[in-house]
Amino acid sequence: MNQSVVPDVSPGTLEVVPLGGLGEFGMNMMAVSWGETTVLIDAGVMFPDPDQLGVDLIIPDLTYIEERRSRVKALILTHGHEDHIGAVPHVMPVFDGPVYGTAFTLALVQPKLDEHGIDAGDRLKTVKPRETVIIGPFTVEFIRVTHSMPDCVALAIETPAGTLVHTGDFKIDQTPIDGEHFDLHRFAELGSRGVLALFADSTNIDRKGFTGPEIEVIDAFEELFTSTHGKLVVATFSSSVYRMQLLVDLATQFDRKVAFVGRSMIQNAEIAQRLGFLRIPSGVQIRDTDVQSYASQDVLCLTTGSQGEPQAALPRMSIDDHRCVKLTEDDTVVFSARAIPGNEKAIARTMSHIAKRGADVVTDSMKHVHVSGHGSAEELKLVLSLVRPRYFVPIHGEYRQLSQHARVAQRVMARADVRLQVLLAEDGDILHFDQHGARIADKAPTGRVLIDLTRTGEVGDEVLRDRRHIAGDGVVVAVVAIGRNNGRLVGDPELVARGSSSARARANRSSGTRQASSPTASRRRAWKNARTRD
Amino acid sequence: MNQSVVPDVSPGTLEVVPLGGLGEFGMNMMAVSWGETTVLIDAGVMFPDPDQLGVDLIIPDLTYIEERRSRVKALILTHGHEDHIGAVPHVMPVFDGPVYGTAFTLALVQPKLDEHGIDAGDRLKTVKPRETVIIGPFTVEFIRVTHSMPDCVALAIETPAGTLVHTGDFKIDQTPIDGEHFDLHRFAELGSRGVLALFADSTNIDRKGFTGPEIEVIDAFEELFTSTHGKLVVATFSSSVYRMQLLVDLATQFDRKVAFVGRSMIQNAEIAQRLGFLRIPSGVQIRDTDVQSYASQDVLCLTTGSQGEPQAALPRMSIDDHRCVKLTEDDTVVFSARAIPGNEKAIARTMSHIAKRGADVVTDSMKHVHVSGHGSAEELKLVLSLVRPRYFVPIHGEYRQLSQHARVAQRVMARADVRLQVLLAEDGDILHFDQHGARIADKAPTGRVLIDLTRTGEVGDEVLRDRRHIAGDGVVVAVVAIGRNNGRLVGDPELVARGSSSARARANRSSGTRQASSPTASRRRAWKNARTRD
Repeated sequence: MNQSVVPDVSPGTLEVVPLGGLGEFGMNMMAVSWGETTVLIDAGVMFPDPDQLGVDLIIPDLTYIEERRSRVKALILTHGHEDHIGAVPHVMPVFDGPVYGTAFTLALVQPKLDEHGIDAGDRLKTVKPRETVIIGPFTVEFIRVTHSMPDCVALAIETPAGTLVHTGDFKIDQTPIDGEHFDLHRFAELGSRGVLALFADSTNIDRKGFTGPEIEVIDAFEELFTSTHGKLVVATFSSSVYRMQLLVDLATQFDRKVAFVGRSMIQNAEIAQRLGFLRIPSGVQIRDTDVQSYASQDVLCLTTGSQGEPQAALPRMSIDDHRCVKLTEDDTVVFSARAIPGNEKAIARTMSHIAKRGADVVTDSMKHVHVSGHGSAEELKLVLSLVRPRYFVPIHGEYRQLSQHARVAQRVMARADVRLQVLLAEDGDILHFDQHGARIADKAPTGRVLIDLTRTGEVGDEVLRDRRHIAGDGVVVAVVAIGRNNGRLVGDPELVARGSSSARARANRSSGTRQASSPTASRRRAWKNARTRD
Repeated sequence: MNQSVVPDVSPGTLEVVPLGGLGEFGMNMMAVSWGETTVLIDAGVMFPDPDQLGVDLIIPDLTYIEERRSRVKALILTHGHEDHIGAVPHVMPVFDGPVYGTAFTLALVQPKLDEHGIDAGDRLKTVKPRETVIIGPFTVEFIRVTHSMPDCVALAIETPAGTLVHTGDFKIDQTPIDGEHFDLHRFAELGSRGVLALFADSTNIDRKGFTGPEIEVIDAFEELFTSTHGKLVVATFSSSVYRMQLLVDLATQFDRKVAFVGRSMIQNAEIAQRLGFLRIPSGVQIRDTDVQSYASQDVLCLTTGSQGEPQAALPRMSIDDHRCVKLTEDDTVVFSARAIPGNEKAIARTMSHIAKRGADVVTDSMKHVHVSGHGSAEELKLVLSLVRPRYFVPIHGEYRQLSQHARVAQRVMARADVRLQVLLAEDGDILHFDQHGARIADKAPTGRVLIDLTRTGEVGDEVLRDRRHIAGDGVVVAVVAIGRNNGRLVGDPELVARGSSSARARANRSSGTRQASSPTASRRRAWKNARTRD
């Protein structure tokens, strides 16, 4: 891992290395190098599975960057979602250059740096769509795309080997809430001039057709504003500023006050208002602490907790444990967000608790109260058709999405003038573009670093394996003191046991439970262990 | 828990106690008592969440039954799914009477008893739809319903207080694969004669309209049989015998051999064939070990592993680790099953591995390759309309489904001659029906018993709490020997650590990972702990 000499990028070779996000959803990060200059695109986190015990966050292995520490000249951010900016506090200490992003993106980075006690000085550089910055041999242009939050950009990077286009996350919303359209024209111009390689979001390649605009949800919400006699409580992602704006506008129209509830919702609403991305007519917003002093039919709450996270506002309300907001019989609670895989059970639990308070639960399977921020197959094809690159690299997805995107791209470009070549890469693959073409040339150190924020940092594989082991069976420590001189026992041996079921199970027989053992037990156990392995 | 005197059921009172399945999906079980007679309906298991460390199965608390041990006269099974029969080996030792079920249901119970070394003697009693059995004051009639497996029944129980109807699991499939129709006529007759209480499945109350028949999937599969040039591998639940029949018929039509792959798939196919529920023309079936000796375009594999269970056949194929079946580029793998909540990530992982083999992945979001076995809102309303009971008790669901079903029922019966009363009960609620009406009269001991099959049995709350604790942080044991006489240290203290990250993280700094700590750490940790609490 700790090579003393890092191989130079060969002269005349453009090197691109995806460090995360190609093989998983999350922790998106990529390095682009020419000669003595490396720029990084995005620095995202991923959230752990339940079997990653004691792990808070996952970031990409930074070895490749650390080895090039002095050559890394800049970090460029496409937008402010956690899977694109969450690792910024971990990456900024590794290099010395600036961090480029739009105003809203950098405003979301700032509180993270504060939390980690990082003083960015003048390193955060605000850019706007259609602006360019020059970094060594690279000219980086920011291009507006539409997504589920404001101020998102794609990148066009002019390099000595040709132009790279990186889409960031996007859909093509043709009626954007803030009137800021996807810059189709710029994509078309780039395609006309010739693009070396396109790196494009693969998240929703499985979905047919067009994702549909954010504004689509307005009908369902109008109906809910009309029919709800108590509080209207809407849970959504705290970064979904367009959803906030749409709901604030409806609340104004239907004479309801708006309260933001939950730490990140309050923080992001404040940032979005300060930067002009969220406009609230005066007198409409109230504080979460004032919700209970208004008649419930006069209130809209925008809250965190759409994923059932137990410490978030909505799950607390659902068990009547929120300091400001109480749910009652006339209220309607709307889940205006998708379920992130892995959270389904926590969400179902929260919904059941809400039902126990007597409130109505509305989900996107019942009414059209959520629309994705990622383009479906037709949108992904459209970007391919516009950009018509020489090489295509699907990014942002598990291998299945990437390979599906590759297949779709080959179909789209089959009869094009330009012969498309797909590079189906994974995290750590070193892509080389030079006069002979492009290929996966080598493999960089790659992987996931599990961060335990309560401890000293990294959680290694061995530690996790031990945790899983003791988690499944508990621990028994035998303390046996043996005399130094005569080798005899000193006192009685002691057994210290935690999390071990044997003794307790026997003691509990009277409570009416069965003892069970069977030949399938070891097979089932193997199942469980294997399940936690990958 | 261990009352020495169990209160008698008051004379003239019918007592119904749901012991599982009202507040969760799974571990369905109910006790019905009159005087000195108790009958049990179903005995199901539930599968653990990933945070229930080292737990293999969950069954209902059996205290209520153990206290009535001598009065329990029979166990009646509605059908052979795990959430209805999985706990039979744990319940049979508690009482002495017979276990009633249809032929296929009991055939699926038998291997479970074998695994647990239970000799059922002559206790398993096969019944057929429209048959009745008399158990003390109860006359139990079995009524055919349609579901995702053959030989499913609802129950009509004549009691001195009136007739109870228990739907079991059902949908109304009007073109059943085996020609055995839902017995609408019997439900109508019962409704005409008058029903005291209806206990009805709530699983799909959230879905509008009609679920649709099993045969609906045939179009998508015909297309796949036509277009697939390699092996066709279909993963489905091993109990889905109708799906098996439909695919066997298509394979016959399209000249493919059929191999059943995976232990439970092979076992259930064998049972279903033996009992005549699955008919395979001679020469069509081949063994899993012979798959590789046929040309791939001549083979259909029906396999386990639709939930991404790592030890099941399909996930093993996906990582090229199955002893018989290899996946290659021309193959198509179909996920013909829903994702059970909690399994989404394991399924996505399996799909990505399959994509790496170059095989096509088809899911029910892409083609209509799966249809639910549970009735949607219109089917649930139809049963209500037919049975038009005096009392209605929604069963099988989390609280949200139950309360939603209650609401729908009130709407359906609002203008009926019979005034409907809903009893929105949960596990352990003691329902009393007598001359004064019906009510939730009391609470029985209730809960979930976590079974660790590799250990001695039960896993208590305290054990699980300890396991979670040590799982998140690891364990450090300090062994300090102190001289008995002088109170001084004997030798050096020793530290034994497993699963603790501190020491290792420091040692690993050179590998290029960041150390992280922040004021949000404790909040995040609280989140994680709370998450594992409910």
